[in-house]
Amino acid sequence: ESPADPKNPKAGKWSFKPRGRLQIDTASVSAPSAIGSKSLGLATEFRRAYFGFDGTIPGNFGYRIEADIANSSIDPTDVYLNYTGIKNLTLTIGQHKPFESMEDTESDLFTSFMERASFNTAFGFERRLGLSAQYQKGMVLAQVGVFTDNVTDLNADTDNSYSIDSRFALQPKLFGGQAHIGGSAHYHDLNDSSATVRYRARPFTHTTDIRFVDTKAISALSETNYGVELGWTGGPVHFTAESQWMKVNRPAGIADPTFNGGYVEAGVFLTKGDTLPYKASEGTWTRIKPRNGVDKGGIGAVQVNARYDWLDLNDNGVLGGRQQLVGASLLWVPTDYVRFIVDYGHLWLKDAAVAAGADRNYNADVIGMRAQFDF
Amino acid sequence: ESPADPKNPKAGKWSFKPRGRLQIDTASVSAPSAIGSKSLGLATEFRRAYFGFDGTIPGNFGYRIEADIANSSIDPTDVYLNYTGIKNLTLTIGQHKPFESMEDTESDLFTSFMERASFNTAFGFERRLGLSAQYQKGMVLAQVGVFTDNVTDLNADTDNSYSIDSRFALQPKLFGGQAHIGGSAHYHDLNDSSATVRYRARPFTHTTDIRFVDTKAISALSETNYGVELGWTGGPVHFTAESQWMKVNRPAGIADPTFNGGYVEAGVFLTKGDTLPYKASEGTWTRIKPRNGVDKGGIGAVQVNARYDWLDLNDNGVLGGRQQLVGASLLWVPTDYVRFIVDYGHLWLKDAAVAAGADRNYNADVIGMRAQFDF
Amino acid sequence: ESPADPKNPKAGKWSFKPRGRLQIDTASVSAPSAIGSKSLGLATEFRRAYFGFDGTIPGNFGYRIEADIANSSIDPTDVYLNYTGIKNLTLTIGQHKPFESMEDTESDLFTSFMERASFNTAFGFERRLGLSAQYQKGMVLAQVGVFTDNVTDLNADTDNSYSIDSRFALQPKLFGGQAHIGGSAHYHDLNDSSATVRYRARPFTHTTDIRFVDTKAISALSETNYGVELGWTGGPVHFTAESQWMKVNRPAGIADPTFNGGYVEAGVFLTKGDTLPYKASEGTWTRIKPRNGVDKGGIGAVQVNARYDWLDLNDNGVLGGRQQLVGASLLWVPTDYVRFIVDYGHLWLKDAAVAAGADRNYNADVIGMRAQFDF
Repeated sequence: ESPADPKNPKAGKWSFKPRGRLQIDTASVSAPSAIGSKSLGLATEFRRAYFGFDGTIPGNFGYRIEADIANSSIDPTDVYLNYTGIKNLTLTIGQHKPFESMEDTESDLFTSFMERASFNTAFGFERRLGLSAQYQKGMVLAQVGVFTDNVTDLNADTDNSYSIDSRFALQPKLFGGQAHIGGSAHYHDLNDSSATVRYRARPFTHTTDIRFVDTKAISALSETNYGVELGWTGGPVHFTAESQWMKVNRPAGIADPTFNGGYVEAGVFLTKGDTLPYKASEGTWTRIKPRNGVDKGGIGAVQVNARYDWLDLNDNGVLGGRQQLVGASLLWVPTDYVRFIVDYGHLWLKDAAVAAGADRNYNADVIGMRAQFDF
Repeated sequence: ESPADPKNPKAGKWSFKPRGRLQIDTASVSAPSAIGSKSLGLATEFRRAYFGFDGTIPGNFGYRIEADIANSSIDPTDVYLNYTGIKNLTLTIGQHKPFESMEDTESDLFTSFMERASFNTAFGFERRLGLSAQYQKGMVLAQVGVFTDNVTDLNADTDNSYSIDSRFALQPKLFGGQAHIGGSAHYHDLNDSSATVRYRARPFTHTTDIRFVDTKAISALSETNYGVELGWTGGPVHFTAESQWMKVNRPAGIADPTFNGGYVEAGVFLTKGDTLPYKASEGTWTRIKPRNGVDKGGIGAVQVNARYDWLDLNDNGVLGGRQQLVGASLLWVPTDYVRFIVDYGHLWLKDAAVAAGADRNYNADVIGMRAQFDF
Repeated sequence: ESPADPKNPKAGKWSFKPRGRLQIDTASVSAPSAIGSKSLGLATEFRRAYFGFDGTIPGNFGYRIEADIANSSIDPTDVYLNYTGIKNLTLTIGQHKPFESMEDTESDLFTSFMERASFNTAFGFERRLGLSAQYQKGMVLAQVGVFTDNVTDLNADTDNSYSIDSRFALQPKLFGGQAHIGGSAHYHDLNDSSATVRYRARPFTHTTDIRFVDTKAISALSETNYGVELGWTGGPVHFTAESQWMKVNRPAGIADPTFNGGYVEAGVFLTKGDTLPYKASEGTWTRIKPRNGVDKGGIGAVQVNARYDWLDLNDNGVLGGRQQLVGASLLWVPTDYVRFIVDYGHLWLKDAAVAAGADRNYNADVIGMRAQFDF
């Protein structure tokens, strides 16, 4: 509304930008027919359908209000106010991501596969209402925040859980490219007398609701988790790997299990001049901008990626199962804001939570396709 | 964000347009008091309250994300990405209308009565997630698509129904006006072992939830339906008629019924210079733009319409009832984006699903009013 | 889309403005532990998270479509079309506020405390679908409307309740400032054979769902309520007070109770040059615009307020309890569109609906904080 004050132009001005994204997914899950579930086979869905606004307010404030309507319900995503009046620092209040991992911090618009690595969903990463500070200067990134729960769970006025979340990274230039060496540490107090946690993951696609690995609900008092992160991008190639350990503090007299997951990924562009960009201020990968987009008469960017992903939900008396997968993906990015993905994964299940007849050790295959745009 | 590329201006540029519509309806249903339902009498509602965005993306892409919040819930309407880089052709992926009929293809903002003809709702026409192609050149329109279900139903990961939908039209200039001669054909496979269908229609207004005609849920494997369409507009007058046949393929040993509905409509403007426009690219009627709108100091456009509408849900062992109605409407369109409607319908029911005491043959009267705007 | 018509510029033109607001609240309720409820203690929530659009349409029309998503559901707020083509008069159709009180008419963005006075929520004030006229000229304001229910309740097609609502005010300049002397009168017919009403209020914060005062559901045929309003603002000081009486017309043979509530408030700015503005066209307080906002290198506006608030839900056989509170608030308004509030209230309960052990007379303390922005 009002322009920047000419005497104090750094205080910012009003801006407003609509935001939206759509991801349409089709995928097929092949698994032993002895499982006997209609959730196998082909399925189609809106993976995400966001819309909202963001912008800036004079006085160095910024805001975002956005929600996902893909499930024909309202699921608030980023809904926050921030302050950028102190150099290199961003203060944020509202619902946002609590710096759980490198891939969780990355926008779902930019991931190399249709879904993030299994541990990201298995360990319950989600946006939460909280207060955080993010500092980035030179080759150092530090993020720290205190959070309560996500706003949907906070509709229960008895929810007084809280967490302290932190993430650090070094961002050196190495071997002619950009490197990322990071880690995160988190403590989450459920702060409620009869709380439980549940860890589980879908098989490489969100179109099915089956989870071959699943701890079911287990009693818990708090969670402590740690992650390590590595990344490198240079020219057409990138490499990235993460692992995370989730320790559950269970009530007195019950052993405390620690679950682990992670992935190793490499990718390369087949189209000349394209690269996977790194966003230093957030410490993660960002939008691919094709050098020769179809809007310039080119064919856009084409990238292939390979990944090994593991998730181990067996420990100390909890038998949630182990899932390993090897996946490959082909991305076609005709313009900055449009993307098509085809990916394929082969899964090895051990001690699966869903039995195939009497068998809990079996394999599965998943093939998926996505059409996506955002603005 | 980015302007059109000067070297390749046809590839399009970024654009963004907010969209919204509001329809406020009040209507009263008079029927024999022996029916004994509180759903009769006066009722008021938001018929539709949409908001969303549409626009274009460089590279000849376009998008729309829109939802209806009239029921205090999110009901995604048009949510799609399209591509217009090939001349005369539009490719669309996402949730959109599967070309069911001429009146269903018409925006609900532009219909001559508050509600479409009974068969449009009775036969379950709705937006679905799919992939379609639309070709229009000269006097030929062709639309074809493959669809699965609407995104709300797709929240069930076991829903793997699909349909093949097609619609064709000739669009000649005839008798000094624009004619439309069209038809559509559809096959819908429920693809599920224990599926049912249900056909029913409200009595000329959406404010009540009573349906005098209703097949109740009947077991089904698939549906095949065909429609014929006629239209003509020239000067102040228009004429339009449609009919559609819905054949239900039921499980082995049960007879397959075919249901039928349709309407015949004529309308005339009382205000000088106004006409009902035809949109060739979609093969249906479009927005009335008053020659002398109130924004120009005039009184806007005034149109009267008359319609006969029938729906027969009795066939081959299914007794859903027969409904006929004669309706009249008065439209006042003060400016392009504001509209008021008053309409009245007299209904004849035979073998009604809702009995008036012991009587299933009776008459009903409905009077309704709508205030509407969109942007 | 189209600019104003040069021959008829007063007819207005197209405009479009996105709207949004976010209020993040944290509050703690201290009450006797004998109450034994987990709803006491600390809680955090999105109090409101609105988004929508408003604007104007050529022909002197205006519109707004807005909804609250704070509860991870869609709650339509202002959704209407209005007409301003007659001088001093605004005609509105759609969902809007039925002129219940001075503080209810005030935007929740501008109230002096985190919550309005108890009677505003206790008496069920809410936006409803209706048709209204608002006239303001010189020092006279008159508002009158007929309404049915809010659109969420109207999803039930049997809801045919209606109300007639009116509010009047004189707006003289007095003692060097702006005065407001007003009143309102309302009749609400439930128009349904087995209807009930329920009056209750949260204790000074919305983060808890406990209500110490609560009539529970009581049978009713209709409601009649009256309010009186006083206000004055000049320089850094303002004063305001209201009281309202709610009479319930109960079925034959049951006594009709009258409940009462109200508040007295005074506030002063600690920062030089700031004042609480009055909006004559709506007859209520409006946005504080700091003279030295942080966007201009200043510290924004700081205001302190004190309030006494009472609510008496005991009368004629109904024992809902009595609640009194004394509250103080500190507002920091760094720029026009950002606000932080800290408030504290001490409550005295008598005949409370929630017993502390055997005791229904006890005290409670509430401290709350809000971070807010809007656009």
